[in-house]
Amino acid sequence: MQPFNPPQRTLMGPGPSEVHQNVYQALSKPTIGHLDPEFLRLMNEVQVMLRAVFQTKNQLTIPVSGTGSAGMETLFVNFLEPGDKVVVCVNGVFGTRMADVAARCGATVVEVKAEWGTAINPADIEVALTQHPDTKLLAIVHAETSTGVLQPMDEVAELAKKHDVLLLLDAVTSLAGVPVELDQWGVDGCYSGTQKCLSCPPGLAPISVSDRGLQLIRNRTTKPQSWYLDLSMVANYWTVGNRAYHHTAPINMNYALHQALRLVLDEGLEARFKRHCENSEYLWQELEKLGLERFVDASIALPQLNVVKVPKGVDEAGVRARLLNEFGIEIGAGLGPMAGEIWRIGLMGESSRPSIIDQLIVALKQVL
Amino acid sequence: MQPFNPPQRTLMGPGPSEVHQNVYQALSKPTIGHLDPEFLRLMNEVQVMLRAVFQTKNQLTIPVSGTGSAGMETLFVNFLEPGDKVVVCVNGVFGTRMADVAARCGATVVEVKAEWGTAINPADIEVALTQHPDTKLLAIVHAETSTGVLQPMDEVAELAKKHDVLLLLDAVTSLAGVPVELDQWGVDGCYSGTQKCLSCPPGLAPISVSDRGLQLIRNRTTKPQSWYLDLSMVANYWTVGNRAYHHTAPINMNYALHQALRLVLDEGLEARFKRHCENSEYLWQELEKLGLERFVDASIALPQLNVVKVPKGVDEAGVRARLLNEFGIEIGAGLGPMAGEIWRIGLMGESSRPSIIDQLIVALKQVL
Repeated sequence: MQPFNPPQRTLMGPGPSEVHQNVYQALSKPTIGHLDPEFLRLMNEVQVMLRAVFQTKNQLTIPVSGTGSAGMETLFVNFLEPGDKVVVCVNGVFGTRMADVAARCGATVVEVKAEWGTAINPADIEVALTQHPDTKLLAIVHAETSTGVLQPMDEVAELAKKHDVLLLLDAVTSLAGVPVELDQWGVDGCYSGTQKCLSCPPGLAPISVSDRGLQLIRNRTTKPQSWYLDLSMVANYWTVGNRAYHHTAPINMNYALHQALRLVLDEGLEARFKRHCENSEYLWQELEKLGLERFVDASIALPQLNVVKVPKGVDEAGVRARLLNEFGIEIGAGLGPMAGEIWRIGLMGESSRPSIIDQLIVALKQVL
Repeated sequence: MQPFNPPQRTLMGPGPSEVHQNVYQALSKPTIGHLDPEFLRLMNEVQVMLRAVFQTKNQLTIPVSGTGSAGMETLFVNFLEPGDKVVVCVNGVFGTRMADVAARCGATVVEVKAEWGTAINPADIEVALTQHPDTKLLAIVHAETSTGVLQPMDEVAELAKKHDVLLLLDAVTSLAGVPVELDQWGVDGCYSGTQKCLSCPPGLAPISVSDRGLQLIRNRTTKPQSWYLDLSMVANYWTVGNRAYHHTAPINMNYALHQALRLVLDEGLEARFKRHCENSEYLWQELEKLGLERFVDASIALPQLNVVKVPKGVDEAGVRARLLNEFGIEIGAGLGPMAGEIWRIGLMGESSRPSIIDQLIVALKQVL
């Protein structure tokens, strides 16, 4: 086998996003032991920075040793016991996935649906929670990566409080791209991924659990069905003063996340959110000149993941292949029922830059 | 927060082991998409090389997106359905962990025990399989990382065949350090980790599943309780011609594993096994001069993980702390009931070098 040399790419898909040179440098620093005092110090700093990015005081705010979907699974397997009832909001692939994961935990799943490309209607959540007063947990996707919809959270958060259910939030694509305010919204469990707006390679899933959520986990009557993702044990490894060995953490990925978080906080969350909005506006201004249309209403469209209707008569896959092969640009296809219908253009983290947008527009002009 | 600069360490613990410079270089190459044709090509090559290292023709031979324990969990959750009976051999931490994981799958667990520091007696397995003719699966640890015992496999493999049970093998610490011959032994499921004798940073768990094992997974009557580790879906992503999106693979970790496997195969398995043996002999020759004794009988001692009895009256943790702080050398402590009783000295992969052994001996002479 020859050494692998990745081709030059500009990453404008739904993740992974472009990675800053400093993050690559951090990633390849020498590995040290997972119980080395210096690694434990790094773990402390990662937790402090993650709390800032999640806008939370939650003690249990850590990266899980897997990609974003491992974060999803972590929260469900720890919060749920067999027979629990959960309301899962489904308006895309990732809501569908949450319902699947919850069912595998032996939970009774009540789905609140909305058409793909639209947000969940809080009134429908209210109906479900009223009809199912024994609901333990409400799960919703903040940024639906399959459709580009940003779910407005204020009313959802109020409903969770009113009906006294745990609130579980998928922030895989939203974290560090648009405001994610865990404490403000009263979120009990939230998970994300490193390869979206944090602009770090994939491999870790930052999560945060409220004190109420942690209490519930500690008071379980059954063990979580996953040993690898058992938060009562994982938390012991990540907690200062305890540091019990559980599994070997992905050391170098944690170096990279540490550096990626430094860059996010150096820029500042407000400035970062503003940048994502402005670059999205610029992208749409240019896309509209090409006659391309939004799939999602602008009022609920994610600035970091811009979803475009494929014009009638255009070869969807052919356009993506030419962008990749002739221009080195990756954009995303539609998933599931959206296949062939949409393109997903990611402007996440380091990918959210006018020069990258210009590169795409030049290429699109030639390809379309 | 300041940038993190790991201190200089020589890794002689139970993993992570030293990493070759070429692997760090591969790790930090630019991230590309998880569905990029070039990444799919890398995935093919990783599978081909993993089959060579596992000494198998098993089609389903892939790295799972988590550390070694995620590999363990992957095999149990996919092989087992609630109510299944499994015989788990327990002679250390990792056998104990397998029993825990199996129980969380709703399986009935029959434990075959041996004293920590000794191998499992095949006669005891025979008794268990005879007493429990409805056993579906026999699970055993090949290299018990907590004690340094290498389990002889020939008789175990014969018993699994004779009683027609699936054979599940933990090769976390053995793979690429001592012979692991999946097809020869008729192993149905095997898992390992990248940070031991493969000398790659932690973050992936190579696994291999026999065709019989895969058939069993495809014929399940219930979904595996883990979505993230559901092999029927994960296999679709890793199989040529299919490539259905499941989760975002840890791209850069796969670059690193690709390079680490190249180094293993460039050296050759036989040469690598010989090197591990010779360096272990050299280590013991020097340790014995210092009056240190083996915890494990030499006939079943792992050459890549050398376990030493802490001499009476010696401050176990104090010695490790001085090695780390004054000499930058990491060795491992005992786990669980072995805490305070033993030191674990890893000579795995890149850590298996005479110059590293000399470094340790010089330090030990001063510290003891």
